[in-house]
Amino acid sequence: MVPAELWFTERQNDNLTIGLRIRKILHSEQTEYQTLDVVETVQYGNLLVLDGCVMTTDKDEFVYHEMIAHVPMHTHPNPKKVLVVGGGDGGAIREVVKHPSVEKAVLAEIDERVIENAKRYFPQIAQGFSDPRVEIQVTDGIRHVQEHPGEYDVILVDSTDPVGPAAGLFARDFYQAVYNALKEDGLFVAQTESPFVNQDLVRGVFQDVKSVFPITELYLAYVPTYPTGMWSFTMGSKRYHPLRDRQPARTADTRYYTEAVHEAAFTLPRFVEELLKG
Amino acid sequence: MVPAELWFTERQNDNLTIGLRIRKILHSEQTEYQTLDVVETVQYGNLLVLDGCVMTTDKDEFVYHEMIAHVPMHTHPNPKKVLVVGGGDGGAIREVVKHPSVEKAVLAEIDERVIENAKRYFPQIAQGFSDPRVEIQVTDGIRHVQEHPGEYDVILVDSTDPVGPAAGLFARDFYQAVYNALKEDGLFVAQTESPFVNQDLVRGVFQDVKSVFPITELYLAYVPTYPTGMWSFTMGSKRYHPLRDRQPARTADTRYYTEAVHEAAFTLPRFVEELLKG
Repeated sequence: MVPAELWFTERQNDNLTIGLRIRKILHSEQTEYQTLDVVETVQYGNLLVLDGCVMTTDKDEFVYHEMIAHVPMHTHPNPKKVLVVGGGDGGAIREVVKHPSVEKAVLAEIDERVIENAKRYFPQIAQGFSDPRVEIQVTDGIRHVQEHPGEYDVILVDSTDPVGPAAGLFARDFYQAVYNALKEDGLFVAQTESPFVNQDLVRGVFQDVKSVFPITELYLAYVPTYPTGMWSFTMGSKRYHPLRDRQPARTADTRYYTEAVHEAAFTLPRFVEELLKG
Repeated sequence: MVPAELWFTERQNDNLTIGLRIRKILHSEQTEYQTLDVVETVQYGNLLVLDGCVMTTDKDEFVYHEMIAHVPMHTHPNPKKVLVVGGGDGGAIREVVKHPSVEKAVLAEIDERVIENAKRYFPQIAQGFSDPRVEIQVTDGIRHVQEHPGEYDVILVDSTDPVGPAAGLFARDFYQAVYNALKEDGLFVAQTESPFVNQDLVRGVFQDVKSVFPITELYLAYVPTYPTGMWSFTMGSKRYHPLRDRQPARTADTRYYTEAVHEAAFTLPRFVEELLKG
């Protein structure tokens, strides 16, 4: 008898899937906002799935979380107050609090169940929550941003894909609200999908951010469990430039980020450069 | 009635798959050396499959072929005679002949059926074959290298995965033979899989090449249809260094490669740097 095989298959779009062999399904629930599943995969360890989309895995989460956090944090000379919109797994804020200048790091996550399940099934990702400088707010990130003008040095938009609860995080109005929530020398970064398959979105977000912020730059990182493995992040900044104003590394506790990686991440393949031109 | 869906699924390893929706199966055969399939996918256009492994697709082939060719070609100040081992689809040699200094570009491909099917189903990849400087030899690349000492300026090892006919291309003896087939200032590059999932291979090849060549460097590119999307190339060089001796770009006819991309590709994430330390 051939033993049964258990596989998790994500439909990354209508025409593309990634499949991961799983040892077992650890948890499934319908939260107030989305479906939430946790499965144990052979390749990548535990996997968090929201509305059927891969969010993070034990084995490759370091890439995304280090790159969404350390690039903007090392662009700001003295980030004291930081906001993470979304990011309920805790990985981004874990990296944020590696910066000694941080006095307060607020997590504005709409779905408390993401936080609770991260603590249970991804303790090494959620470990940042225990830092005394971290404040967890279960709230709509859009409203939080609107209600805190001029308050933050750095804002990270660590969202799900631009469908469901995160759709409003990919709109020009939101980037304007983020601009307003930043101090006069503040900056922000958002995850902005793959330039190989989400070209309209990458271009649209870049143009929208550019229409709001004087400095707009896109950078890339290798995230194996996201579609195509090439992931983009878009930075909008009021004053500091990610290359000209880059700060010396404040932590050696990274597995992907280095000073050289920070610089190289902004070097774009020609087709991505051309995509951003318009 | 729900219409049937046709999918191509590659088992990238025991625990990981990529799935591509296909419009139709264009061709399937058993050659003397391997199984060969061509399918038309929605996401990536036509797809060439050897022994069940994704080799190349219409839509993303430019990344791999530009990066395996232009990085070594732009490291050599005056490449006249170039060898491609494998590479029967023609993509690597198409990029090689964009360099005006090239007088002769030899393709040593063991399986004539790969060449024939590339001409039929991937004409824009195979177009390099029609350049008068190109010489196609249907032969064992290992033997060709052994029989041509001191002959080449640049050698590209554009192989399949290290199983089946290509296994011998991932061995120290082969790198020594490549060294011998190069002129006194020659250099070579081989595709060397993904640092995320083929860590032992990446480390082993790097150490083997380093034991033969005075200059050994690894670089990376985003290849969406290869496992994890992060692909590595290992360069061994007798004299020229890929960064210190990099030449100005000799062609603007690229979609991935630029002078800045050449430089940035050698910047490695910390975990890859540490992998190479042994």
